[in-house]
Amino acid sequence: MSNLQKEDFSKWYLRTIQNADLMSYSPVRGCIIFKPDGYELWERIQKQFNKYLETQKIRNSYFPLLIPKHFFEKEADHIKGFAPELPWVTQVGDEKLEEPLALRPTSETIIGSSFSDWIQSYRDLPYEVNQWANVFRWEKKTIPFLRTSEFLWQEGHTAHASEEDARNRTMNVLDAYADLIENFLAIPAYKGQKTPSERFAGAVDTYSIESMMRDGKAVQAGTSHYLGNNFAKSFNIKFLDKDNKHKYVFTTSWGSSTRLIGAMIMEHGDEKGLVLPPAIAPTQVILVPVGPWQKNPKIIEQLNNIEQKLKDKNIRVQLDDSDSSPGFKFNDWESKGVPIRIEFGPRDLENNQVTIKLRDLNDKETTPILEIEDYISNQLKLMQKRLLESARKRNKENEYYNIDTLEDLKKHIEKKKEENNTPGFILIGWDGTAETEAKIKEETGFTTRNIPFNPPIEKKIDIVSGKPAKYTVWIARAY
Amino acid sequence: MSNLQKEDFSKWYLRTIQNADLMSYSPVRGCIIFKPDGYELWERIQKQFNKYLETQKIRNSYFPLLIPKHFFEKEADHIKGFAPELPWVTQVGDEKLEEPLALRPTSETIIGSSFSDWIQSYRDLPYEVNQWANVFRWEKKTIPFLRTSEFLWQEGHTAHASEEDARNRTMNVLDAYADLIENFLAIPAYKGQKTPSERFAGAVDTYSIESMMRDGKAVQAGTSHYLGNNFAKSFNIKFLDKDNKHKYVFTTSWGSSTRLIGAMIMEHGDEKGLVLPPAIAPTQVILVPVGPWQKNPKIIEQLNNIEQKLKDKNIRVQLDDSDSSPGFKFNDWESKGVPIRIEFGPRDLENNQVTIKLRDLNDKETTPILEIEDYISNQLKLMQKRLLESARKRNKENEYYNIDTLEDLKKHIEKKKEENNTPGFILIGWDGTAETEAKIKEETGFTTRNIPFNPPIEKKIDIVSGKPAKYTVWIARAY
Ligand SMILES: [Zn+2]
Ligand SMILES: [Zn+2]
Repeated sequence: MSNLQKEDFSKWYLRTIQNADLMSYSPVRGCIIFKPDGYELWERIQKQFNKYLETQKIRNSYFPLLIPKHFFEKEADHIKGFAPELPWVTQVGDEKLEEPLALRPTSETIIGSSFSDWIQSYRDLPYEVNQWANVFRWEKKTIPFLRTSEFLWQEGHTAHASEEDARNRTMNVLDAYADLIENFLAIPAYKGQKTPSERFAGAVDTYSIESMMRDGKAVQAGTSHYLGNNFAKSFNIKFLDKDNKHKYVFTTSWGSSTRLIGAMIMEHGDEKGLVLPPAIAPTQVILVPVGPWQKNPKIIEQLNNIEQKLKDKNIRVQLDDSDSSPGFKFNDWESKGVPIRIEFGPRDLENNQVTIKLRDLNDKETTPILEIEDYISNQLKLMQKRLLESARKRNKENEYYNIDTLEDLKKHIEKKKEENNTPGFILIGWDGTAETEAKIKEETGFTTRNIPFNPPIEKKIDIVSGKPAKYTVWIARAY
Repeated sequence: MSNLQKEDFSKWYLRTIQNADLMSYSPVRGCIIFKPDGYELWERIQKQFNKYLETQKIRNSYFPLLIPKHFFEKEADHIKGFAPELPWVTQVGDEKLEEPLALRPTSETIIGSSFSDWIQSYRDLPYEVNQWANVFRWEKKTIPFLRTSEFLWQEGHTAHASEEDARNRTMNVLDAYADLIENFLAIPAYKGQKTPSERFAGAVDTYSIESMMRDGKAVQAGTSHYLGNNFAKSFNIKFLDKDNKHKYVFTTSWGSSTRLIGAMIMEHGDEKGLVLPPAIAPTQVILVPVGPWQKNPKIIEQLNNIEQKLKDKNIRVQLDDSDSSPGFKFNDWESKGVPIRIEFGPRDLENNQVTIKLRDLNDKETTPILEIEDYISNQLKLMQKRLLESARKRNKENEYYNIDTLEDLKKHIEKKKEENNTPGFILIGWDGTAETEAKIKEETGFTTRNIPFNPPIEKKIDIVSGKPAKYTVWIARAY
């Protein structure tokens, strides 16, 4: 078996997503093609998150992709943050436009402008919408799914009568992201607040879910922003309150994107390829006939029977009765990450059993055909939990709490490098200055991920200045 | 009651979609905002058409929005057809791009280029994908939903080993569009072939579903193109056939868009506003308490009970227990097109009945609460059929088969105008020349819609030249 994941994680990742037929490079710099097996993962994430939106009565809508230049200029931090990566439409046909139009990197401005038309009174609040859309941020270095010039995402935008309501929505969505990531994608969520330097351009506070990949690097899996009155003031979003006074609304925005697909792959994948959590797997069970099955029609007959039983139980099952060899099929479906393989041949037929291989475990086992549907259904649930637990265990092994100085940090990184191991997530003390963050980044490439709500321990001393720490912060290398 | 639909159809349309809160204008020329009530109609259309795609094992994918300029230039007819309406990204941040990138008006070129990478052998065929995406065609005159600079659509792209297979897919999709339009949106479908002048830029043959609006004008509701080897040759899409020879594939493409929303509104709407076919209506039944209901808690109790019964039957129901007056609620929900209103007050409570108002009929009726769910379920089915039948009847009254000369056509139009009536769809004889089409358009504004597969009668003489007709064609004014 290959050792590539351990030796060259990036190379392993690129090979894995191609072998699994999830994507294809495109002729446009930094833009990928989502092939059906990749896109279906996104469709399933959409379906799952839409369930949350429904419980909250937040409905989907669609706003124009193109945003007039002067809209960006209304919120000073916002344009400053996004300007370098904005693609501009300057021409239609042969004609030059009077005002350039940006391809949205996010939609606070155009939605803010709409809110100011739509919101009149406290009765209109909260006003909460979401959209599923393509967005553009022209990146220097791109990685399929994780960082692409065009990507797909959902962005929620809400307006509230009070700071409290807006903050509640901000945190409620953060919890929803954590739930999606942990219980659907089986990725442990590091919940916390971003430092000011990592804040969304235009936000008062940004909160994030961070996740740790197998190579110890971080992926920001979702962010939720409390925007205060910033956009309300820039776009004049006011409401007539119960006390008959005109007041600015308090807004929030929050997003998660197709980078979740990349995170899931880097979290669970192994040397054989993808490992998909059962909850999201387009195909949960693959049925493979083995032995001289073409000579005994009873084998396919029984497999059809098993297929139907599983379908009746709402299990997503496929029968691979193609002419390829069993060995080829095993590799192929393993590289695609299918959670459970059921092998069925003459001996199984004779013994009224099936042979089962779980994608994340090594041994095969046999189980009677009778009540196979309950057995499989249960195994899918167990695997879903097991993947999250394995990830938690891996994360714990790569978390470090007792690094107190920049020297120690550098030594730690050096040591891990020598061991061909990951430096992981480091919990540090921080005095709250941008100087400390800049110094860490400059010397180690580590960045602050977030300030956890419940740190495993409280750190007392700033890792750079040695001054008393105001915050306990996760730092890591990040995608 | 207002007479606006009859007097000024355009004004009626714009008022109707705004009253129903479906859309909002945006700061970008010709781009609209799909508000939740409008976007949900699109989500339901997506869900319905995805069912067809699933039966055909055509899977969704996603291709980049941006298309390099030289891609368009590979297919000469294609660039010629789309060039005037293409928005171009020429700059990112402060930097000018080396090659301008177009915002896709459709994706034959970028998908063709991908197909040429992905397709190797006859075993890879048919290769069939679909995408749901935003597309751009910068229109001079825009109408919300029907013609906007950015719109949402699905586009299917398929490659086949033979002309026969490709033509079968082209026609199979056309049937699927007809099914969607008739049985989901309750709009009668006029199936036929486009004339060469109305053909898709780059196609060998274009087929369309046309629909007739209440004002007698046509909306093209879906098109399906047989592209022959045109794109295969431009993008070098070849496969190794069973006979060991390299051959060009035969491709198709087909699309339907958010203009279906506009068509549905113009087909069924009345002076009170929207009329939604039950199959697509986000809310199928609205429950409204009447009389002094706040004083008798039994009324809301019983309404909650009815609501639950309907929900259990998978009927989309809402209870409006807001403080507005019943009259206000009646108007509001009628303007939003909810198929069935159930009124419930003290007298209904006493008699164990509900009062029912069907959106498309004038009378109210009462029915016992017992088994209300079966009654309503049946009424929804009946209304779905009734709307299609009413539309068919209206269409028949606005179809004209016996206009044989341009003079007669002009007289017909004049007469209808005097009667304040619609000139409708005219079935004409056509000698197959572009001259006839040009002359008709110039003199009357009518354009050829399509050559029906089963015309009600065969026309023998060209309406302009008087020469023998080669085709029988529908002409109409069109959106
Ligand atoms: Zn600001
Ligand atoms: Zn051509």
